[in-house]
Amino acid sequence: MTKEELIKQIKLKKSFLCIGLDVDLDKIPKHLLELEDPIFEFNKQIIDATHKYAVAYKPNIAFYEAYGIKGWVALDKTIKYINENHPEIFTIADAKRGDIGNTSKMYAKAFFEDLNFDSLTVAPYMGSDSIEPFLSFDNKFTIMLALTSNKGGLDFQGLETNGTLMYKQVLEQSKKWKNSHNLMYVVGATKASYFKEIRTIVPDSFLLVPGIGAQGGNLQEVCENGLNKDIGLLINNTRAIIYAGSDKNFALKAAEEAKKMQEEMKSIMDSRF
Amino acid sequence: MTKEELIKQIKLKKSFLCIGLDVDLDKIPKHLLELEDPIFEFNKQIIDATHKYAVAYKPNIAFYEAYGIKGWVALDKTIKYINENHPEIFTIADAKRGDIGNTSKMYAKAFFEDLNFDSLTVAPYMGSDSIEPFLSFDNKFTIMLALTSNKGGLDFQGLETNGTLMYKQVLEQSKKWKNSHNLMYVVGATKASYFKEIRTIVPDSFLLVPGIGAQGGNLQEVCENGLNKDIGLLINNTRAIIYAGSDKNFALKAAEEAKKMQEEMKSIMDSRF
Repeated sequence: MTKEELIKQIKLKKSFLCIGLDVDLDKIPKHLLELEDPIFEFNKQIIDATHKYAVAYKPNIAFYEAYGIKGWVALDKTIKYINENHPEIFTIADAKRGDIGNTSKMYAKAFFEDLNFDSLTVAPYMGSDSIEPFLSFDNKFTIMLALTSNKGGLDFQGLETNGTLMYKQVLEQSKKWKNSHNLMYVVGATKASYFKEIRTIVPDSFLLVPGIGAQGGNLQEVCENGLNKDIGLLINNTRAIIYAGSDKNFALKAAEEAKKMQEEMKSIMDSRF
Repeated sequence: MTKEELIKQIKLKKSFLCIGLDVDLDKIPKHLLELEDPIFEFNKQIIDATHKYAVAYKPNIAFYEAYGIKGWVALDKTIKYINENHPEIFTIADAKRGDIGNTSKMYAKAFFEDLNFDSLTVAPYMGSDSIEPFLSFDNKFTIMLALTSNKGGLDFQGLETNGTLMYKQVLEQSKKWKNSHNLMYVVGATKASYFKEIRTIVPDSFLLVPGIGAQGGNLQEVCENGLNKDIGLLINNTRAIIYAGSDKNFALKAAEEAKKMQEEMKSIMDSRF
């Protein structure tokens, strides 16, 4: 998918919602456990019920790896299901990968070619040549960790270096990398004020924003500081949507929650554009 | 495996060699491609031929993910084969994982419990609570990136912060984390002089050292600066060993190369202990 297509979908659906697919067999409705592939069945029903309100889905790869080969089969079926039935959806493999060049190339092949995701999250610690292999794929997006919203996020990201903070150095340096137009960034929502400064460094980039809701982030504040002319935000929500219900009506409950978020996004978009 | 068992094996085998299992179907001998599972068959023959000279094997997970479900089946068979036939071997899943707490927990479950690896490589960018879920497993080791030997390794690891360099901060801070006795560190071999300073911060920790050979590192120099009272080094070599031969005799060729490295290690150990 191109960036232009993503922006078009956002404007069409009046939504910049991304739904996380972190499927935990201990949390999904019990009746699904009797089926042959409960993970895929859960995802399929969630996707069918919520795709009108969302522009992106983000399977968290750890939750599939944790179930071994069964998990990979479910992931494979999930991404194929989205690509075949909802090709307008932007797909994100949330994998936080990153390694030396020839290894990053193998990860890129796995997620961009074989599984055919539109994008992949990566970690920057190993520097330019650990990320550039991902960036060389046309119309595939590499979403690099910048500022994360977890408790220890600032342990290293918040260290001062060369008169600025580490995560800002990461943003600044990454702009010079080859094919940096294929970069997006992960920026946690817990402190909305950070978005103002981040926008001075990467005014045009898309930011994937976890941490709204469960982790305490506020949508209005994030939008105030983070929206750009193309919207430029993908707001992720996982638990409040996919685990809204715990019974046979779980997909309906998920759709209700997704719709609520989409309506809040619509009203923000209507008031600003 | 406990740390004591690893040290015992090192002393018994007079070797601190780790062999990387980065299986690329374009590089393995052609005759294996006709078999049902060429990746596992390659690994099995390499392991059978080299295990006398090595104390650890390190499958690079990217190379398995790149082959999708077939790759995961081969990884599963490989780790089971090692654990059943060579339980004295220390196993490393080279995966560079790291995410928010509940996600890191899922990765830990996947690699430590289901696949039953002794250790896993992780990336530190997300800080303490992204690593601590791994550290909570008894007799499982979390090998965190500190200083890597790739071209862009110093892009962020080499930035000055609080009067020291980022990778030293990573080492320093990690010592304060819960169950930090389960930490080991990745330190690239390209500049042996770094090891002297690193040993002032983590004198007792095991260091996993890639970059000898192909990437230009020198074994003698690394040992001079990096060995500690328990040896404390695992020197990884991949391509020079597993791709030493390209014909039906590939395992024999691999064994010859592994033996050469083991003999060099033996002579270093004999001269120092």
